[in-house]
Amino acid sequence: MTGIKAAGQKKLMLFSGRTHPELAEQVAEQLGIQVVPTKFQDFANGEMYVRYLESARGSDAFVLQAHSGAINESIMEQLIMVDALKRASAKRITVITPFLGYARQDKKHLGREPITARLMTDLFATAGADRLMAIDLHTDQIQGFFDGPVDHLFALPLLADYIKEKVSGAEATVVSPDAGRVRTADRWADRLGLPLAIIHKRRDPEVANQVKVHEVVGEVEGRTCILVDDMIDTAGTIVKAADALFEQGASSVIAAATHGVLSGPAAERLQNSRISEVVITNSLPIPKERDFEKLTQLSIAPLLARAINEVFSDGSVTSLFEG
Amino acid sequence: MTGIKAAGQKKLMLFSGRTHPELAEQVAEQLGIQVVPTKFQDFANGEMYVRYLESARGSDAFVLQAHSGAINESIMEQLIMVDALKRASAKRITVITPFLGYARQDKKHLGREPITARLMTDLFATAGADRLMAIDLHTDQIQGFFDGPVDHLFALPLLADYIKEKVSGAEATVVSPDAGRVRTADRWADRLGLPLAIIHKRRDPEVANQVKVHEVVGEVEGRTCILVDDMIDTAGTIVKAADALFEQGASSVIAAATHGVLSGPAAERLQNSRISEVVITNSLPIPKERDFEKLTQLSIAPLLARAINEVFSDGSVTSLFEG
Amino acid sequence: MTGIKAAGQKKLMLFSGRTHPELAEQVAEQLGIQVVPTKFQDFANGEMYVRYLESARGSDAFVLQAHSGAINESIMEQLIMVDALKRASAKRITVITPFLGYARQDKKHLGREPITARLMTDLFATAGADRLMAIDLHTDQIQGFFDGPVDHLFALPLLADYIKEKVSGAEATVVSPDAGRVRTADRWADRLGLPLAIIHKRRDPEVANQVKVHEVVGEVEGRTCILVDDMIDTAGTIVKAADALFEQGASSVIAAATHGVLSGPAAERLQNSRISEVVITNSLPIPKERDFEKLTQLSIAPLLARAINEVFSDGSVTSLFEG
Amino acid sequence: MTGIKAAGQKKLMLFSGRTHPELAEQVAEQLGIQVVPTKFQDFANGEMYVRYLESARGSDAFVLQAHSGAINESIMEQLIMVDALKRASAKRITVITPFLGYARQDKKHLGREPITARLMTDLFATAGADRLMAIDLHTDQIQGFFDGPVDHLFALPLLADYIKEKVSGAEATVVSPDAGRVRTADRWADRLGLPLAIIHKRRDPEVANQVKVHEVVGEVEGRTCILVDDMIDTAGTIVKAADALFEQGASSVIAAATHGVLSGPAAERLQNSRISEVVITNSLPIPKERDFEKLTQLSIAPLLARAINEVFSDGSVTSLFEG
Amino acid sequence: MTGIKAAGQKKLMLFSGRTHPELAEQVAEQLGIQVVPTKFQDFANGEMYVRYLESARGSDAFVLQAHSGAINESIMEQLIMVDALKRASAKRITVITPFLGYARQDKKHLGREPITARLMTDLFATAGADRLMAIDLHTDQIQGFFDGPVDHLFALPLLADYIKEKVSGAEATVVSPDAGRVRTADRWADRLGLPLAIIHKRRDPEVANQVKVHEVVGEVEGRTCILVDDMIDTAGTIVKAADALFEQGASSVIAAATHGVLSGPAAERLQNSRISEVVITNSLPIPKERDFEKLTQLSIAPLLARAINEVFSDGSVTSLFEG
Amino acid sequence: MTGIKAAGQKKLMLFSGRTHPELAEQVAEQLGIQVVPTKFQDFANGEMYVRYLESARGSDAFVLQAHSGAINESIMEQLIMVDALKRASAKRITVITPFLGYARQDKKHLGREPITARLMTDLFATAGADRLMAIDLHTDQIQGFFDGPVDHLFALPLLADYIKEKVSGAEATVVSPDAGRVRTADRWADRLGLPLAIIHKRRDPEVANQVKVHEVVGEVEGRTCILVDDMIDTAGTIVKAADALFEQGASSVIAAATHGVLSGPAAERLQNSRISEVVITNSLPIPKERDFEKLTQLSIAPLLARAINEVFSDGSVTSLFEG
Repeated sequence: MTGIKAAGQKKLMLFSGRTHPELAEQVAEQLGIQVVPTKFQDFANGEMYVRYLESARGSDAFVLQAHSGAINESIMEQLIMVDALKRASAKRITVITPFLGYARQDKKHLGREPITARLMTDLFATAGADRLMAIDLHTDQIQGFFDGPVDHLFALPLLADYIKEKVSGAEATVVSPDAGRVRTADRWADRLGLPLAIIHKRRDPEVANQVKVHEVVGEVEGRTCILVDDMIDTAGTIVKAADALFEQGASSVIAAATHGVLSGPAAERLQNSRISEVVITNSLPIPKERDFEKLTQLSIAPLLARAINEVFSDGSVTSLFEG
Repeated sequence: MTGIKAAGQKKLMLFSGRTHPELAEQVAEQLGIQVVPTKFQDFANGEMYVRYLESARGSDAFVLQAHSGAINESIMEQLIMVDALKRASAKRITVITPFLGYARQDKKHLGREPITARLMTDLFATAGADRLMAIDLHTDQIQGFFDGPVDHLFALPLLADYIKEKVSGAEATVVSPDAGRVRTADRWADRLGLPLAIIHKRRDPEVANQVKVHEVVGEVEGRTCILVDDMIDTAGTIVKAADALFEQGASSVIAAATHGVLSGPAAERLQNSRISEVVITNSLPIPKERDFEKLTQLSIAPLLARAINEVFSDGSVTSLFEG
Repeated sequence: MTGIKAAGQKKLMLFSGRTHPELAEQVAEQLGIQVVPTKFQDFANGEMYVRYLESARGSDAFVLQAHSGAINESIMEQLIMVDALKRASAKRITVITPFLGYARQDKKHLGREPITARLMTDLFATAGADRLMAIDLHTDQIQGFFDGPVDHLFALPLLADYIKEKVSGAEATVVSPDAGRVRTADRWADRLGLPLAIIHKRRDPEVANQVKVHEVVGEVEGRTCILVDDMIDTAGTIVKAADALFEQGASSVIAAATHGVLSGPAAERLQNSRISEVVITNSLPIPKERDFEKLTQLSIAPLLARAINEVFSDGSVTSLFEG
Repeated sequence: MTGIKAAGQKKLMLFSGRTHPELAEQVAEQLGIQVVPTKFQDFANGEMYVRYLESARGSDAFVLQAHSGAINESIMEQLIMVDALKRASAKRITVITPFLGYARQDKKHLGREPITARLMTDLFATAGADRLMAIDLHTDQIQGFFDGPVDHLFALPLLADYIKEKVSGAEATVVSPDAGRVRTADRWADRLGLPLAIIHKRRDPEVANQVKVHEVVGEVEGRTCILVDDMIDTAGTIVKAADALFEQGASSVIAAATHGVLSGPAAERLQNSRISEVVITNSLPIPKERDFEKLTQLSIAPLLARAINEVFSDGSVTSLFEG
Repeated sequence: MTGIKAAGQKKLMLFSGRTHPELAEQVAEQLGIQVVPTKFQDFANGEMYVRYLESARGSDAFVLQAHSGAINESIMEQLIMVDALKRASAKRITVITPFLGYARQDKKHLGREPITARLMTDLFATAGADRLMAIDLHTDQIQGFFDGPVDHLFALPLLADYIKEKVSGAEATVVSPDAGRVRTADRWADRLGLPLAIIHKRRDPEVANQVKVHEVVGEVEGRTCILVDDMIDTAGTIVKAADALFEQGASSVIAAATHGVLSGPAAERLQNSRISEVVITNSLPIPKERDFEKLTQLSIAPLLARAINEVFSDGSVTSLFEG
Repeated sequence: MTGIKAAGQKKLMLFSGRTHPELAEQVAEQLGIQVVPTKFQDFANGEMYVRYLESARGSDAFVLQAHSGAINESIMEQLIMVDALKRASAKRITVITPFLGYARQDKKHLGREPITARLMTDLFATAGADRLMAIDLHTDQIQGFFDGPVDHLFALPLLADYIKEKVSGAEATVVSPDAGRVRTADRWADRLGLPLAIIHKRRDPEVANQVKVHEVVGEVEGRTCILVDDMIDTAGTIVKAADALFEQGASSVIAAATHGVLSGPAAERLQNSRISEVVITNSLPIPKERDFEKLTQLSIAPLLARAINEVFSDGSVTSLFEG
């Protein structure tokens, strides 16, 4: 016989970096598997080391990492993980970044700026990523930064169903906190069948220099306002937006976003604001010191697990968001 | 002597496809040069042929083409021109697409769609483009589709200065015809120091099915409305937006956009609408049959020429938009 | 359990552009499948849109398009189809171009020309093609333009068997219409066991300037001449060749070619010529207005279907042309 | 001051492998320079080592090597030279292969064959070549194998001028020794204003099996025949072609080719044949044992030097063959 | 006139990340220029932002960053700087990493490990680096990880000249602290004309398990030992090596290394050891808390400046280490 | 039905070049298969031709070639074999180079040198190799030259087990013949639990010029010395090392290496030396004229076969060297 024939087989394996192990474990549990045991080591000068304790040869590898905490380190760790998988003969490598770091730097506002979001997708491709999976990218165009398949998942159904119940009965309005985020708000308004308002920041023509006025465009008086965004970072924008809404007579304000970045003063600001509830997913870890009473976290793990399963079994990720 | 030393020299050359020779000639005139004489030929089965009648060896080549008319043919012609330049030893090739074809297909709305805008930048890179130059890309993120320098030019100063004069004295408002274009309107509002309004299309909750209502968000009553967009294609959106504005009591409506695509019924629709003036640039050719009385075309050639000159002389394109 | 194991599976899917749906359907029928339902849309400014109505995830995708009609549009449509498949996670993409557009521009005759045939294969690779399949490429070397597998199919058996029957009993000669196509004629002569003649175009030394004489090199008097080529485009060459053959005493002339491009005056010229029959395959669609009485079209679909099947099942395409 | 400005400068440097130093020196002399002194070393196991004895930093480097002798070694040596130049910061690297090795393997005749000519151009690109320069490639399409500029030079003017003088006054015919080389013969016929004949090899229908007959297509009786080809390798084809011509009454036969490969029995065969003179260029070295009385070698060095100079000075290589 | 001709010009610009501005300023001073003013910003979630305050168009850009401190952040910052330069049309980008992070992970010791040093060079290439410059790479082979020119500089002359003076008159021996670093020690021994000794760590066959013995191979009794390495990280190896040398009767020990990583307990360990002096360069910043009495730091800035100048002026970096 | 589903299948096929067919056959035998029948042809001018006589479509192809004999030819043959497999639609191509040619040129010692080892891995990647397999690469870092999986196998267990038995009972020492090979010797010392000595070549300070002294660093008097290296080429180093060891009182010397290059005078030198036995593997063919009495050759075929099998069956190559 000239050659050896054998039946083809494929093997799904889930790998996780160190920034958000809880999410990886939830996903693994949903899939009925274990996260692949991995040795991580930090050298004295900050260099990291990764080694998988099981053979990844021929695997359909999914590598999950939250870009969070020491964010550059979390990105580098994932790049190193991908490199190790490539050299370990993984068959296909899907990088999962529930929240993609640097996604907001997706264009040049000014000359001599980087487009760091594109750099990120390029770095992952170079390390060996065949595919990307992400949730609610800051702009949809980031899909086009990667020269290959991107599984773009949406947290909207999860968040909107929760909010819908909360506001049922009330006169509600969806509000975009910023002219640049209207498209997100538009999708919410569409799904919930509610009117839209926009916070428009502009220079006050009465006052000299760069003073900005938060102008509410649209009807909010006496209404429950649902402030929506893809992420809440320092919460400055969203808290000022809420203030503006209350000034215009809003009866109450709820904030909802996919990614709870919650940097710096965010937790304190939100807790002390007049916003009644802040709803996010667990796409990013919320360390204890950033948690606060008004915060509600919904788990994105079932969605990720279903998407991974569709990818592995050549099903349809699109179908997860239809109907 | 082992080698021959010589002083380095560079040579700017301007090449033009066949869709918008007037623009190329205006640019050439501004630069004080001639467009490089080029032989174009169409074979009986539609294949095109290009040959330059002067040596392009070592040149700093700028290849201008409007993606217009038979748009796929215009794109293919430019790709072939770039291939010929690459093989003719041009030193550096800058593709100029005043209006980039397929720019609106810059993301996947649904599964199994292409991202044709990214495909376009990839095709140009493959043909041999080192750099891109474009005016008012449909979204800023498209800059990140190209793995190299993109000179992104803005027609806003040109258009806004013209409009400013027109509306001086009146109470004016900048209006975005669509929730997705608010960022453009925002820049206009900022530059002109005017308030902002938005047309929000949504399902009418009173009526079953997909009927959309054009809701005006913001104050327009008794005001001169400046409807702004990056392009006007069939003019359906803009004419309906104007109607909605007049319904809300707008005193008059002017429309302004960088790219006058003006497909199909656009000319007739605009001429017959209550819009008083439509202001565009000549980034795309306007054939006679698409011209109409209310249309004002401003020349983008001086801007392109200045940008080309900055690129050639290692100056600063950013500086063209400062101050 | 660390991972999930599953049996490997593969799925052949056939996709078709809009220029030659009949051929795609014939191929599908031969394979016992349906062409994948696909939504095509033309925007007002000529931009095209494609979306597959079934999941293509993990598929072994074959994308058939005739480069015909508005040829640049047909090429662009296929490029867009490939991009959409790449982003939809197709496992392997084979581009089928029964007739490859621009194949005749496969070299630089003169300085500052493109090599558009190479550009074509590069564009398809960039869009995401893993493999190419084509029939009777204008020159065999085009296989080497693509950095990957090319399944190069031959229509010669199909055409030659038909012709053989036609000319059986007669004294026949295979004739190359041009010095550059002798290799094709050589293969015919070899397969049919017939002598060869060549039409040699050269400047008439008696007449000044560029006047060309069609000189017949070889014996044709009283013989049935089989004029062979890879394609018939405007039919100018072939009709002049036939005239030269009759002048040298040929008793009759049949023309055979794989690709019936039949541009411009071709149908009329051929019908009005002294050629008795023109035999081609259906690699390209023949619209009614280009059909004519003397034209015989043989279906290439069975060959394409068999080749696709060999590719899909890891068989041997070479075997289709052996013995 | 933020930066340091300096005038740009360029430096032509000529590098040569070890197979044909005479040609390199002739070219250098024409250019008025020296070949860059280079250390070559052969290790005991056959590995080669190259080091340049002068800095090549920033140079416009031309690397000449004849693919000859131990041909694979000569190719590998040139690849190593290019790698060393790339790592030594040469600014631009032009690989000069007067005769490109493996050029005849430019397509797949049969399944499971390589396309080694394409492999060659790929290997040079990988090593670091920015450009190629070659003389009379076996087929023009090989230009398209390289994704960059190819300076394709023609020895025809040199050879044809020499032959023209030789045959002046005689009734001459240009003869292609093979159906596949007609295009070359066609160019000769065109330049010399002479008729064309072709040797057509085919199976003898009278005799069983694979016996080939060398059939002369065209008029040669009483004429001086100029047998032309791009190369003469073992000379089997050309000697048999000459025999066939004499059988058909040719009065005399001269053979001309660009590349004198002259492998194995070539010298003896040609010397002992009835061919009166064999004219080639010195694109390949002719070791003493392969030289023979009837052989005339014309120097290609002036052409190479002029082409290098045009490339270096951003002139026009095309212009060398015009008028 | 068809085109515009202008004299070529080049402009050296020096860019610096934030980890070691002192070194960048020293280099700039040596070159007689300023570091390009650059805006750096850290967002609340740790994302970084970079913008150059001067046009970098057409520049010959050198980007210096010490991989130090929060090392992954320092690497990411440099990657972002390179991306910004690429998009700002810098003509050529040289990444300077005096100490290359992750250089020790230059191979797989075990299965399923990354080769992070190669990943690093790939990431820089992807971001846009055309060239690398580094000092005393951990292994010479890392030069081969980058597909382009690497300027590999040596601190040996600087360090050895200093040490030579220190030990003049004494009976000295060069000692490698580890079997893997013998090649470095060999170069020192060669340059100083001194004998060599090696510390060989091995399992003690007398004692069970993994206990290692530090065995001194070579003569050290009564001699001044110069312990040399490319870097001193936690100083564990070097301090144990010194102990072993004193046990074998060494009269004194000096330690020398190019890179003072000096992580964790290094400063304390060295200060408290019997080593009399530790000599390093300033390739990495030494924060106050890591400085210690016995530490001598020599400036590498003059070497870097000379190398940059040779690169910019197409001189010879090799020449800096000759003679 | 839209598509055709079929079970995935994979097929291992082993291909072999012409330099070491015995090894390929041994490996095939171990795997229970035949080497794929292949037609090789050498043209008169030294060009090679390869064609597989069985379909390789969809195969998991392993291509074995010893870089030996006319080493550049053997490398080129393997490159051509890979090109043919790529174009024949092999699914995955693993290049097996038991001994990788040019591995010693893995860095630049001096300016203007190539890094030919990197060039080699690049050439294989360009030809179409997806993976590499090699035994005892000259330095481990060469793994990082290839941008993909490298299966790096170790002959140490095979060689050390043989030697262990030979020297059992004796007082033995592992000796590195050179400062640069200490790491290899270190692994031997570790595995055999023996002390280490090193031969240090340095300039004799007593004698002028470049005279080198072979200094033994470590204890060897009265001991059995095991001289170890990755390869024995001309055997100059190893024989001089043995002499130095005997001078220092070694009782006997055995030499062991993975690769028996045995160039030029090696066989004679070794046979005539005081070395009692030379142990190598059959990674390279030993032609009769290079064989000698003291030479012992151990077969590496079982290791290669096991590694191929692990790769094919998605097992673990790492596991072959554990425990």
